[in-house]
Amino acid sequence: MDEIRAGVDRQLAQFIDGRSEALIKIDPHLAPVAAAISQYVLSGGKRFRPIFAYLGYLGAGGQPSEKVLRACSALELVHVCALIHDDLMDGSDSRRNLPSIHKRFAALHSSASYQGDAPRFGAAAAILLGDLALAWSDQLLAQAELDGSIKERCLPVFYAMREELMAGQYLDVLAGAIADSDLDRALKVATLKSGRYSIERPLHFGAALVGAAHSLTKTYSDYGLPLGQAFQLRDDLLGVFGDPAVTGKPAGDDIREGKRTVLIALTMERASVSQRAEVTAALGDSELTSENVERIRAIIEECGARHETERLIEDRFQDAAGAIEAGGFPPEIASAFSSMAIIATKRSS
Amino acid sequence: MDEIRAGVDRQLAQFIDGRSEALIKIDPHLAPVAAAISQYVLSGGKRFRPIFAYLGYLGAGGQPSEKVLRACSALELVHVCALIHDDLMDGSDSRRNLPSIHKRFAALHSSASYQGDAPRFGAAAAILLGDLALAWSDQLLAQAELDGSIKERCLPVFYAMREELMAGQYLDVLAGAIADSDLDRALKVATLKSGRYSIERPLHFGAALVGAAHSLTKTYSDYGLPLGQAFQLRDDLLGVFGDPAVTGKPAGDDIREGKRTVLIALTMERASVSQRAEVTAALGDSELTSENVERIRAIIEECGARHETERLIEDRFQDAAGAIEAGGFPPEIASAFSSMAIIATKRSS
Repeated sequence: MDEIRAGVDRQLAQFIDGRSEALIKIDPHLAPVAAAISQYVLSGGKRFRPIFAYLGYLGAGGQPSEKVLRACSALELVHVCALIHDDLMDGSDSRRNLPSIHKRFAALHSSASYQGDAPRFGAAAAILLGDLALAWSDQLLAQAELDGSIKERCLPVFYAMREELMAGQYLDVLAGAIADSDLDRALKVATLKSGRYSIERPLHFGAALVGAAHSLTKTYSDYGLPLGQAFQLRDDLLGVFGDPAVTGKPAGDDIREGKRTVLIALTMERASVSQRAEVTAALGDSELTSENVERIRAIIEECGARHETERLIEDRFQDAAGAIEAGGFPPEIASAFSSMAIIATKRSS
Repeated sequence: MDEIRAGVDRQLAQFIDGRSEALIKIDPHLAPVAAAISQYVLSGGKRFRPIFAYLGYLGAGGQPSEKVLRACSALELVHVCALIHDDLMDGSDSRRNLPSIHKRFAALHSSASYQGDAPRFGAAAAILLGDLALAWSDQLLAQAELDGSIKERCLPVFYAMREELMAGQYLDVLAGAIADSDLDRALKVATLKSGRYSIERPLHFGAALVGAAHSLTKTYSDYGLPLGQAFQLRDDLLGVFGDPAVTGKPAGDDIREGKRTVLIALTMERASVSQRAEVTAALGDSELTSENVERIRAIIEECGARHETERLIEDRFQDAAGAIEAGGFPPEIASAFSSMAIIATKRSS
């Protein structure tokens, strides 16, 4: 896995270096844009989507290939767009222990004593940098110079993935706005936002790079969909109980942002009337103190919603593990899929 | 030209209908997203970029083709992303006499009594709908099913166009923030934002769809760059002097937004010290009354900046016309290029 990750990092670095140079050649005033996006893309990230895509390719019998690594790395740029825009929409201040892009450019505005409103400048920069990353995702994919027939197979998967991502993001925002804490809806959003986008679609993308049989696509869904849901459920838990030093995000951010996660839906089902009223009042209150957050955490714990979410994760992890076992992959591939399942569900950041 | 425009409209309608259906199939809650983006894309717009691209193709000897019309229509979706995101960044309330996307979704939030902040919901929706349009631009281009060698020629132009657009947008926002009213900078931003993106690159894109000779690419630059600048200069004039009933945007919006246009740079060069102070104070003041705007208009007029901008447009129009004459195109193509030059520079919306 480390080798794949290193390969993805190498492809991204090469691409981003080229684009940064191009930007500065357009105008030297674009240097802060190039620097921000380079640091954002290259200073970490779990690279889940490219790694799953490449594993999907290897699992379908593909041979190690730099071109394919490049194609899979395009998925990371889609994700970079999603993160930059998501942080702006949520008003999140940090990501990967760095200021989020809108914060970074708002700070540039202040430190350079620019005119006008600093947050507004930061927001504009974040919108444009996210757009750039999204546009670049196609460019990197094109630079993989895949054969025509392979491209024909993998592009529909790539496009469906991006469409579902944006659809899922909208439904997520909508769920917060209609204060919908229905469990089925929360699971559906989790499936769209993560089940498909983060794992299943990347696996299918990798399979399409080989031209895999239908049965393999089904195995990938049997593994990827529950694992993707479990991945999102872990995210939900980290958004409330995560250690800020490890997650790189402030504690309890999901509560302040009013996210209608599966964890919250379970809490609403299980909490007492008075507890439910407390949680309802806290959700989306950006002024919440750390004591308030601590209180909501205690309710989520006491009513058993945290425990139940852990159980849902474990169930889905087992389903995913079973699908890999039944898939009859060569041992090293099966072991890579198992490791990724553990990383995706048992992570702390 | 009407035939080309109708062809572009047809291709866009067909594509957007398909994507709308796909969205609603993902989740019926996406119906407002599908409706908003359909109305936005299909209810007008000048279609400059697809038309220039298709003319670039015909001028290079290409034969009428639905596939090529489809490829050229992809440029309109890039533009839709730019408009949706630009309106959000600028805080513009309307576009094409319809509420801008962030306003539309903020209104949906209010009328449906959603929880949380309506403008914030509107902003999130505008970010995601713009992203969707940008992602769709590649998808529509892919659906044109161009031959491999043609794709290899036109994709670099397409990618460069998108990168320059976002670079130009950032430089535009930056110019407002550093309150830079330098004429050369304003012309450079105008060139990036419009000279290349709106006309020159679309022409080159069209030429690449045929595989045109270098000499034609040069002719297209000689026509497209000055015309693109003139197009942007007309935009600057309309942003200050335009009739809201015709432009579909509030009067004097560019002043309230603090845009550092060529028109403003010329005003700063020519106005008296006291006039300059008045203009400086007004730029970026979102609370400006219509009387204030009227006063700034009078200064721009009196100091001769409006007249000088008209002269710059006329000079560039003549350069563009000369390039077409020298290009030796068949009469009907030359006449189409001339008509487009008139539409681009003498328009009132």
